[in-house]
Amino acid sequence: MTDANAFDAVLDAIRFTADGLVPAIAQAEGSGEILMMAWMNRDAVVETLTTGRVCYWSRSRGGLWRKGETSGQVQRLKDFRVDCDGDTLLLVVEQDGVACHTGRRSCFYRAWRDGTLEVIQEVETDPSVLYGHQGHSHG
Amino acid sequence: MTDANAFDAVLDAIRFTADGLVPAIAQAEGSGEILMMAWMNRDAVVETLTTGRVCYWSRSRGGLWRKGETSGQVQRLKDFRVDCDGDTLLLVVEQDGVACHTGRRSCFYRAWRDGTLEVIQEVETDPSVLYGHQGHSHG
Repeated sequence: MTDANAFDAVLDAIRFTADGLVPAIAQAEGSGEILMMAWMNRDAVVETLTTGRVCYWSRSRGGLWRKGETSGQVQRLKDFRVDCDGDTLLLVVEQDGVACHTGRRSCFYRAWRDGTLEVIQEVETDPSVLYGHQGHSHG
Repeated sequence: MTDANAFDAVLDAIRFTADGLVPAIAQAEGSGEILMMAWMNRDAVVETLTTGRVCYWSRSRGGLWRKGETSGQVQRLKDFRVDCDGDTLLLVVEQDGVACHTGRRSCFYRAWRDGTLEVIQEVETDPSVLYGHQGHSHG
């Protein structure tokens, strides 16, 4: 049983959107690499702080998204930060494997160079290994 | 004169919200510290890539927000990245002084520790020095 009141201090500090969501940036502990940005609702915040495993809200699926539940690429929470306005979260995480559904470590693998968007990070894990052959977009 | 077409490749890759905005994460070059998250519209993206000085869209003021135009705390663009879905940007920047309007280096200065939100970063610059005594919330 989780005592929901235990999280009042942090939930009160977060300014959720009209849809009840807040953007959360995931940063790798140690390297400092930005892995991804996704959204959380109140339940996702409470579950993440309770379990220490990062849980987002999937806007496309309309449900809690326990990162790694399909792919195995779990994020373990190391630090949970709130910005000055309370409208963005920063999650410092230990990432199992890769964060991106394309099989790359980070979702931010395209960079603006010499007038084009260039791919600057290689695929480390074949997405078909992560998701089977169903073709999930996230997990 | 800027050739707007020169930026078609990047603008086409970005999925702006219905309001015409996209969240942009600012990360300090070198240290990798996450400084802030703010929003850009198409004009802000084009101006940032053209000038090399980061320009956001201020949702509260409803106008372009040339970071540092009031405070002097300019961000120089070092790398501009787009995520897999095109719905978030990552700006690697060289930050003059502090990023946060509270006078702290980063906006993410509150961390969840032992059941409370704890301030983990000191004020480096008195906000009254950054903004005079008018009390701006951002700049």
